[in-house]
Amino acid sequence: MLNFDFYNPTNIIFGKGQVAQLSNLVPKGARILITYGGNSAKSSGTLKEVQDALKDYEVMLFGGIEPNPRFETLIKAVEVIKNNNLDFILAVGGGSVIDGTKFIAAAYYADGDPWGIVASFGQSVRKALPYGAILTLPATGSEMNNGGVITRASDNTKLPMMNRLLYPRFSILDPTKSYTLPTKQLANGVVDAYVHVIEQYLTYPVNAHVQDRFSEGILQTLIEIGPAVINNPKDYELQANLMWCATMALNGLIGAGVPHDWATHMLGHEITALHGLDHAQTLAIVLPSMLQHRKKRKRDKLLQYARRVWNINHEDEEKTIDEAIEKTRNFFTSLGVKTSLSEYQLGPEIIEPILTQLEEHHMTKLGEHNDVTPDVCRKILQLSM
Amino acid sequence: MLNFDFYNPTNIIFGKGQVAQLSNLVPKGARILITYGGNSAKSSGTLKEVQDALKDYEVMLFGGIEPNPRFETLIKAVEVIKNNNLDFILAVGGGSVIDGTKFIAAAYYADGDPWGIVASFGQSVRKALPYGAILTLPATGSEMNNGGVITRASDNTKLPMMNRLLYPRFSILDPTKSYTLPTKQLANGVVDAYVHVIEQYLTYPVNAHVQDRFSEGILQTLIEIGPAVINNPKDYELQANLMWCATMALNGLIGAGVPHDWATHMLGHEITALHGLDHAQTLAIVLPSMLQHRKKRKRDKLLQYARRVWNINHEDEEKTIDEAIEKTRNFFTSLGVKTSLSEYQLGPEIIEPILTQLEEHHMTKLGEHNDVTPDVCRKILQLSM
Repeated sequence: MLNFDFYNPTNIIFGKGQVAQLSNLVPKGARILITYGGNSAKSSGTLKEVQDALKDYEVMLFGGIEPNPRFETLIKAVEVIKNNNLDFILAVGGGSVIDGTKFIAAAYYADGDPWGIVASFGQSVRKALPYGAILTLPATGSEMNNGGVITRASDNTKLPMMNRLLYPRFSILDPTKSYTLPTKQLANGVVDAYVHVIEQYLTYPVNAHVQDRFSEGILQTLIEIGPAVINNPKDYELQANLMWCATMALNGLIGAGVPHDWATHMLGHEITALHGLDHAQTLAIVLPSMLQHRKKRKRDKLLQYARRVWNINHEDEEKTIDEAIEKTRNFFTSLGVKTSLSEYQLGPEIIEPILTQLEEHHMTKLGEHNDVTPDVCRKILQLSM
Repeated sequence: MLNFDFYNPTNIIFGKGQVAQLSNLVPKGARILITYGGNSAKSSGTLKEVQDALKDYEVMLFGGIEPNPRFETLIKAVEVIKNNNLDFILAVGGGSVIDGTKFIAAAYYADGDPWGIVASFGQSVRKALPYGAILTLPATGSEMNNGGVITRASDNTKLPMMNRLLYPRFSILDPTKSYTLPTKQLANGVVDAYVHVIEQYLTYPVNAHVQDRFSEGILQTLIEIGPAVINNPKDYELQANLMWCATMALNGLIGAGVPHDWATHMLGHEITALHGLDHAQTLAIVLPSMLQHRKKRKRDKLLQYARRVWNINHEDEEKTIDEAIEKTRNFFTSLGVKTSLSEYQLGPEIIEPILTQLEEHHMTKLGEHNDVTPDVCRKILQLSM
């Protein structure tokens, strides 16, 4: 097991009806900016429910945070906070709103150009406004971690940031809030959580038995409930398990003491930035070819994954691995998520610009061995056609 | 899944050589009381290592905290803190030292008789001194939770307390610190962690898939590494996995959103209080008969336990369950831990006084269904002979 530092102070309030707890969670007298995305926060009634629970507080609203939240939008929220002397933020939404809120919380205290926060991958943050979250979409894990991904529209740059000052004070996870999500978003959420686990699990063995078992447990659960929750979005137990899977997939726990990959994510970010595919759509395309191309380097863990997660155990190890990768691809397909670029009408001409972007963003030595170079990425993208 | 509130702000610093991080973790200028147990903290060199890492701080020592830490001892530490204007505590030891330190931290601010903290099961705590821990013995999980068990020697009372003000600020988990533990303590640690998981897992199903998988993962890991670590106490990977298992077994995570039992623990506490057996020794005696006697109530989870943890799956479900209970007993035996009272020369005459104690401590409706009455406990103790 590798040495590690694990710290996660976010208070999770999980279950039906927990929005009513808000006034016990937000500090008395706080002046709150509620951040949210599109109309669904309004039409679903969640925003109204939140405002009712906060009727004794001064509250302002800031909507319109996009999927892949934009720097250009978020800095406007910082101005609203400054101009109105607000001192607490409450994010109501999914990963994009919560990621964006992290940036707002940090940018409030930024010296100089707030893009510096993202350009430093979050390392320049020295102070942040306190914030909480009401999760409406299980997927990214942002509700219980200190990271986010911010996009600058002006130059198609999508970069991750992270800082231990950026944990939510609390997050309310009410699985009924996902009942009305579009099928596509639910399916994306399953894929996103699944690939988050894979990025921390499917590297090379370091005798981290508990972390491996936990990762396998989340993957097994996602396989069990994934297609079911899409077909029965109003089944509380299915939604509850999906929500808790997604949170546990990226709150630092399964990643403590083990090597990390994240090459699939970094490659996927560039596809989203240049071609607008949803984050999870890019992961479902890149992951199978990433595993196929790197199967020698990942051999031991791929075998463990095949045996423990998929119950595949042929005498022929090669066949065992190939079948596990195929099952992974089929799992994404069973959720209605496509697994090739051509299904999105994207051809080989997109490859070189993606590699250029990777180089521009210093993403030239990816993966757990730092050997996923642009050349390797080219082959993976060719396999992803 | 049941609704839940999960909060665990303890910073875990895990691995070889992490004691050197101390001066980054203890607030600058803190005046520290180091609490510890017997001579092993000294003879192992850990105390010296800690003092070296804290050479820029004002430090006092308080040793002699017993296994099953005593109220009578702990209140002396409170006096030392008050008389010397200390403001931070650093526990160096296993669960007893850390549990005792929690009480000291709370008792410093107690109005009136500090026993009230324990008598209220920790609910009367309003403020506590900050403290950190250096774990030397993997077992109780106290290093990453907010609970403790305190014994009052004057009337043989051993009671649990819990309060969210009582989390350690940080805990340093260096698996090499367990290299020199006596075999008995290592074996006790494995049993303790195992039964902690069972108390939160082996109740009745509530569709908490992730929690179940995590629990099963810890149990499987303990089964894999338990006998091995006892035979190879200087194997870093084995010790690291045992330490992380023990921490994860009782940090609130696997218990979030599921029913809890704890009847085995409460019965075991009385045996320790009256007859001095080690905590884990009592668990290894009580658990198998607890499961045997309550197997109808626990049927669904016992089957799941048998199938997933022990890979037992006979057509005859009764046989499947009995074999899983037998395997559990044999696992404890394989660690060198006895599983019956008679092996400790304790006979049926001990039963009634234990039941009287349970009644005195209001422990008359134990278990996940509150149906483990003193009468049920009598039968379980008879089965434990």
